[in-house]
Amino acid sequence: MTIKDARTPASSQDEQPIQGETSTEAGKSIGWHKAYVEGTRPDLRVPVRQVHLTNGQSVTLYDTSGPYTDPVADTDVRRGLAPLRENWIIARGDTAEYAGRPVRPEDDGIKHTSPRGGLRNLDAVFPGRPRQPRRGRDGQAVTQLAYARRGEITPEMEFVAIRENVSPEVVREEIAAGRAVLPANVNHPEIEPMIIGKRFLVKVNANIGNSAVTSSIEEEVEKMTWATRWGADTVMDLSTGRNIHTTREWVLRNSPVPIGTVPLYQALEKVDGRAEELTWEIYKDTVIEQAEQGVDYMTVHAGVRLPYVPLTANRKTGIVSRGGSIMAAWCLAHHKESFLYENFEELCEILAAYDVTYSLGDGLRPGSIADANDEAQFAELRTLGELNRIAKRFNVQTMIEGPGHVPMHKIKENIDLQQEICEEAPFYTLGPLTTDVAPAYDHITSGIGAAMIAWWGTAMLCYVTPKEHLGLPNRDDVKTGVITYKIAAHAADLAKGHPGAQDWDDALSDARFEFRWEDQFNLALDPDTAREFHDETLPAEPAKTAHFCSMCGPKFCSMKISQDIRRTHGGSRAEIEEGMAQKSQEFAAAGNRVYLPIAD
Amino acid sequence: MTIKDARTPASSQDEQPIQGETSTEAGKSIGWHKAYVEGTRPDLRVPVRQVHLTNGQSVTLYDTSGPYTDPVADTDVRRGLAPLRENWIIARGDTAEYAGRPVRPEDDGIKHTSPRGGLRNLDAVFPGRPRQPRRGRDGQAVTQLAYARRGEITPEMEFVAIRENVSPEVVREEIAAGRAVLPANVNHPEIEPMIIGKRFLVKVNANIGNSAVTSSIEEEVEKMTWATRWGADTVMDLSTGRNIHTTREWVLRNSPVPIGTVPLYQALEKVDGRAEELTWEIYKDTVIEQAEQGVDYMTVHAGVRLPYVPLTANRKTGIVSRGGSIMAAWCLAHHKESFLYENFEELCEILAAYDVTYSLGDGLRPGSIADANDEAQFAELRTLGELNRIAKRFNVQTMIEGPGHVPMHKIKENIDLQQEICEEAPFYTLGPLTTDVAPAYDHITSGIGAAMIAWWGTAMLCYVTPKEHLGLPNRDDVKTGVITYKIAAHAADLAKGHPGAQDWDDALSDARFEFRWEDQFNLALDPDTAREFHDETLPAEPAKTAHFCSMCGPKFCSMKISQDIRRTHGGSRAEIEEGMAQKSQEFAAAGNRVYLPIAD
Repeated sequence: MTIKDARTPASSQDEQPIQGETSTEAGKSIGWHKAYVEGTRPDLRVPVRQVHLTNGQSVTLYDTSGPYTDPVADTDVRRGLAPLRENWIIARGDTAEYAGRPVRPEDDGIKHTSPRGGLRNLDAVFPGRPRQPRRGRDGQAVTQLAYARRGEITPEMEFVAIRENVSPEVVREEIAAGRAVLPANVNHPEIEPMIIGKRFLVKVNANIGNSAVTSSIEEEVEKMTWATRWGADTVMDLSTGRNIHTTREWVLRNSPVPIGTVPLYQALEKVDGRAEELTWEIYKDTVIEQAEQGVDYMTVHAGVRLPYVPLTANRKTGIVSRGGSIMAAWCLAHHKESFLYENFEELCEILAAYDVTYSLGDGLRPGSIADANDEAQFAELRTLGELNRIAKRFNVQTMIEGPGHVPMHKIKENIDLQQEICEEAPFYTLGPLTTDVAPAYDHITSGIGAAMIAWWGTAMLCYVTPKEHLGLPNRDDVKTGVITYKIAAHAADLAKGHPGAQDWDDALSDARFEFRWEDQFNLALDPDTAREFHDETLPAEPAKTAHFCSMCGPKFCSMKISQDIRRTHGGSRAEIEEGMAQKSQEFAAAGNRVYLPIAD
Repeated sequence: MTIKDARTPASSQDEQPIQGETSTEAGKSIGWHKAYVEGTRPDLRVPVRQVHLTNGQSVTLYDTSGPYTDPVADTDVRRGLAPLRENWIIARGDTAEYAGRPVRPEDDGIKHTSPRGGLRNLDAVFPGRPRQPRRGRDGQAVTQLAYARRGEITPEMEFVAIRENVSPEVVREEIAAGRAVLPANVNHPEIEPMIIGKRFLVKVNANIGNSAVTSSIEEEVEKMTWATRWGADTVMDLSTGRNIHTTREWVLRNSPVPIGTVPLYQALEKVDGRAEELTWEIYKDTVIEQAEQGVDYMTVHAGVRLPYVPLTANRKTGIVSRGGSIMAAWCLAHHKESFLYENFEELCEILAAYDVTYSLGDGLRPGSIADANDEAQFAELRTLGELNRIAKRFNVQTMIEGPGHVPMHKIKENIDLQQEICEEAPFYTLGPLTTDVAPAYDHITSGIGAAMIAWWGTAMLCYVTPKEHLGLPNRDDVKTGVITYKIAAHAADLAKGHPGAQDWDDALSDARFEFRWEDQFNLALDPDTAREFHDETLPAEPAKTAHFCSMCGPKFCSMKISQDIRRTHGGSRAEIEEGMAQKSQEFAAAGNRVYLPIAD
């Protein structure tokens, strides 16, 4: 495979500094750059983050940031991203454009406030919308699962194979077996394909969404690009307020990562928040609306069945999933089985025609330590296992959502049961939070559980921000949530022994041991903050090459002493062992210096 | 047991608001207060944090903050804390005061810069110092271990029994078996006794210390009180620069928690940083100096033996422990066995005479994922097991330090081996960090490992701040480090099924489900930040009683819906199951409201 640096279009003699780039005195360019690994066809270019070290080596890291970090890409949020996958989709010849469902004012939740019936905030409508949507011809399943089962390796599969450093056949096999999903709606050609499955790198989802209380369209698009810049692999748009359709359109057209939603939220808006007025028709119409826009995966709370609602009665915190509580209220109001459960097969047919992936929601997940792994949760899980099998019959890709609040000793039971009941379908968990006592730090209470459950097989982690339980995350909270979850995901990749995962740690630890501060910063998950923290105590430029830091000062730097020992006594164990006594004499003769002054 | 509120000395009719207290409209006092649980004698008062809830209930939490949070205590850092344990120590009659070692200018690391030989910065000397130190008569062991083995339950043991909500006999047994330590130097009578052992609540240590590069005495004392305010159970003073003796004196006299040190750091200062000039005599003199001041536990790197040094040669990051690298350098320079290992028995005799607890240092702990659980670390661990047995012979309380950087899948092996080799002596670990790639977030990379290793038996966790590897922690970093580690410790207490641990989570979750926002804040590990985060989005006072928050808004609050379901359909499972159909009709008749407007 060839790695093409994103800078190559510019003259290599006249490189312009881009994000993350710095120059050493010797004029050598270090830092990190967007680069691409080319596949078997010219339009298959897999983005990577290439970190150039001061020792001349480079490290290639997975990159989710999209064209926004490519200095030669010309991005404009009002135009949207280039439709990378469009030709691949068209070339398959199994989809066709059609008129599509007309966009209505109530899609933006404003039917009751705009007597004229038109869309208010016309400025906010995405330019050139609506366009013709696309779906499978004659209702056929145009899903990556269907292709995988037929033995086809799609360009999307090759793309993720390169990203994951595995063979395309492994990708195909995992998708075909239902152990992995590649969420890629035919109406979202802008995405850079990614895969979710325990055989692959652990993924992280970031939630965004204007709530009824606050936030704006621009903020949500900005949160999306911000989250992916720090490593979010997918983004869920959980908007519930005004302009819900329009916000989603902006997010989709500008998103390089798959977008997930919970269609129930929008459906509820359409009935003014009266759960009992929800109908299968309104829900279905909403799903089609969102599928036509390009939503890649949808949370469907079809496992919240009427008989399970009473199981939550003695819980400490009842039902904490919004979707779960809405469906429970509907079931009780009508004393009827859930319309999602009853119409699940028809829903499968719709999703298959767009390649929308199911994220089967855990509406009865525990909302407190006291409620973890209880009867309600496991009853729903068994139904999710049943629905998973139905979805597979319809060739719909499926992942299963998981908790929630779970103390450490109950985490393994939780995922083991999910893997067994759901035939190893990808598990997608929210944390879990390992204690309830630390509001304002739930990124940490849940980061602990997330790392553990991912080690044991969870394929994607839904992030939790410091504002969980308290308020809406702002830009800093989104970043903190994503970084925390990237840590959990990478810690799990290491624990699973994912091939190559440790190379990153090794490169950073080498840089640390050799006092290559700039390399440490550039290799860090968050170079900006690492650099800022270092400079807070030792801001001067020479400190970036100093063989110590402010923690121990020059005299007490263990790594400095360790290096000096190695330098004095030879590098390898054999050398040290064989020559220890003699070297000891030389060491004494040389003045017994175990560390050297700063100037050294 | 009786709980006395710290406010009782003041008239209960005229309560002054103290920290954490707020008043409801009804005039009822809610918030949290310092209170004391009385033991079998009037001078045995165990501090607790009493949280008064709006529903009239209260929750009692473990409290490490010392007299500083007691509004009736009159604290003054220039006078120090009251010597709580003094009478207990004197009453035992096994110690005596003696002249003590004279304090010398070089104790403050200034022999080469002050030609007159006097202490500079005289203002900084603690008032009334030096005073007569105390030690075991005729060199006898005056340790809690010796008492426990003799079957004596000391006031210190009763104190921790009340704190831990176990019987004093359990405390005595655990100490006698070497499975727990109660660090309490006879020269540090100011401490509120605490215990470290896997049978008890997981403890957290916070490091402070002026490094050679920055920081001041006042800052260090302030860091200590700040760290204990947020929950640090012990504090290690790792000062290495000027005024090292004086700083320690200030910290000790003002600390309500046990203080740990690494005497090797000060010894090295005394030989101007030349490791090869260290001698047993200089080291021993430093240990006595610190024991006379009242240091409760000391890290001793006696396990770094000459033959182990070559085992580190092929490591990625060599020796990352300061103490370990200093001892390795000394061993190589002289080509001799470590003077700490060779003189360990004499050291035991000294520590026993003051009841200084060993913290046997892991000088060869791994500093990177690549070096985890390697031959060097485990070779040293076996020696620590040997030293642990020797220390027990001398009745010296002992804990064992542990790593470091360890990927998740190698953590259990690490602690299982420690428990086996060291006969269940308390393990005291630094994290471990579960990945190397996130400098600036190592409180989180290590918080993950800390929670896991504590679940599996680590008794005390040494915190890691966001500045780890990068710089010196400031006030905010100390707080973040402590809070992160309190989360890890509490998550482990839950996972271990520690009796009563879940009560705290349950109280907070009850408050959350019932929208008692003030109670949520007051029960939170960090009430200030929880409140601040809530108010960022919904600052108005009515939002504190609102039955929703800014995350979902009023319409989508799952807990609100869940409550409404319960209210409409009856509270218990039986009621819901039996009456579901009928209730459903009533629900419809009542307007099918699944949630209520804000005003409700």
